[in-house]
Amino acid sequence: MKVKELIVEGKDKFVYATDAEDTVLIRFKDLTTAFHNIKKAVIKGKAAVNCQLSALIFRKLEEQGIATHYIATVGECEQLCTRVDVLPLQFIVRNRIAGSTARMLDVEPGTKPANVIYELRYNNPGIGCPMINEHHAVALGLATYDELDTILEMLRRTNEYLVSLFDASGIELVDFKMEFGRTPGGRMVIADAITPDNCRLWDPVTREPLDKDRYRFDLGGVCDAYREVLSRLEKNI
Amino acid sequence: MKVKELIVEGKDKFVYATDAEDTVLIRFKDLTTAFHNIKKAVIKGKAAVNCQLSALIFRKLEEQGIATHYIATVGECEQLCTRVDVLPLQFIVRNRIAGSTARMLDVEPGTKPANVIYELRYNNPGIGCPMINEHHAVALGLATYDELDTILEMLRRTNEYLVSLFDASGIELVDFKMEFGRTPGGRMVIADAITPDNCRLWDPVTREPLDKDRYRFDLGGVCDAYREVLSRLEKNI
Repeated sequence: MKVKELIVEGKDKFVYATDAEDTVLIRFKDLTTAFHNIKKAVIKGKAAVNCQLSALIFRKLEEQGIATHYIATVGECEQLCTRVDVLPLQFIVRNRIAGSTARMLDVEPGTKPANVIYELRYNNPGIGCPMINEHHAVALGLATYDELDTILEMLRRTNEYLVSLFDASGIELVDFKMEFGRTPGGRMVIADAITPDNCRLWDPVTREPLDKDRYRFDLGGVCDAYREVLSRLEKNI
Repeated sequence: MKVKELIVEGKDKFVYATDAEDTVLIRFKDLTTAFHNIKKAVIKGKAAVNCQLSALIFRKLEEQGIATHYIATVGECEQLCTRVDVLPLQFIVRNRIAGSTARMLDVEPGTKPANVIYELRYNNPGIGCPMINEHHAVALGLATYDELDTILEMLRRTNEYLVSLFDASGIELVDFKMEFGRTPGGRMVIADAITPDNCRLWDPVTREPLDKDRYRFDLGGVCDAYREVLSRLEKNI
């Protein structure tokens, strides 16, 4: 397969066209950003571990019948994926209330509510990616109510499965962000990637973060923590 | 009926206990606030017109089978209402996208989406009454999913009825905010008040605001505009 033009450069990956019309090549970056791009650094080796981690998680989700854009890993930092029309929305799932959401709601960070919290953000960095709800998303033409219902059901199933997968691997899945896209055939699939860059993952005993909070709050050992996540998952699988 | 102790003083009304356990007396204030209390003024006569307007609207909603806390008007600025446990939530209904929401979503103020937008805010002035969604509300123990479903259905019916009522009176209902409460018997009813303080009401031809935006943006004639709303509704009913 031949790699062609760059379609889009995201914060942490490049997406290239290929000579197969329905397939793109995604190249993960070592670049790490936080706080809406205010903080940036290159963390050597992060792209490779994220590429492996996301591939592993997407393969497990596919086994559960949850559709993703993932096709195959073709290089240390490279994946072939289905070319999808990515919705300009971020879908966030919270099993605990942490980070800025704990501040927004004035609750103790780490509070575990009885229900899972699902959140929607408008993926528009020009206006700070504001939190919105499904009615705003439909009003802006970003998705239909039916599509959002389909995605909510996929989020529920994904969260249920990943909580148990991580739990069995000695990791607590606190929260995570996902993106979705429409395939050329009109199916809704998980797009982007699932990595410690967009999850909060805690050691269940020490509550030590094994995710991007290590970078956000200068805790050090970012890539080691990401590799630890991979290692715990691989031991379990 | 005897008026007893002050239960709560809100921004624009007092709520008193009465010697009937299930009944409160609400006294509207002339005080007007905007921009989270940054701007304040006493607008003489506002309490009286709001008391009349809200009573008129609540009576019409009751005729439609939509339950409210309203019982009777007992003074120029005073109503007897059912004593309810008010949910610390603001429910906002938008037929057009105006004000700060237009800025948040980066759309032209006044944009009319194909769907109605329903929004939830956590009525907690200490943290700026942030916009939340139903999952946050349930996680915080502010309401149950069933209660929020009941309220959404009441909002839909209220909006459908009020849009047509205002339209027939030569007024466009752009958006409005409502609060809800649980009666001692466990029924969900509309609480607070519906007035130009918590609605956007436009002249359908000139788009001139007939609501609190006249105060927010120093357009003058605040109370005259509120009286004009009352007069157009009364002519129509």
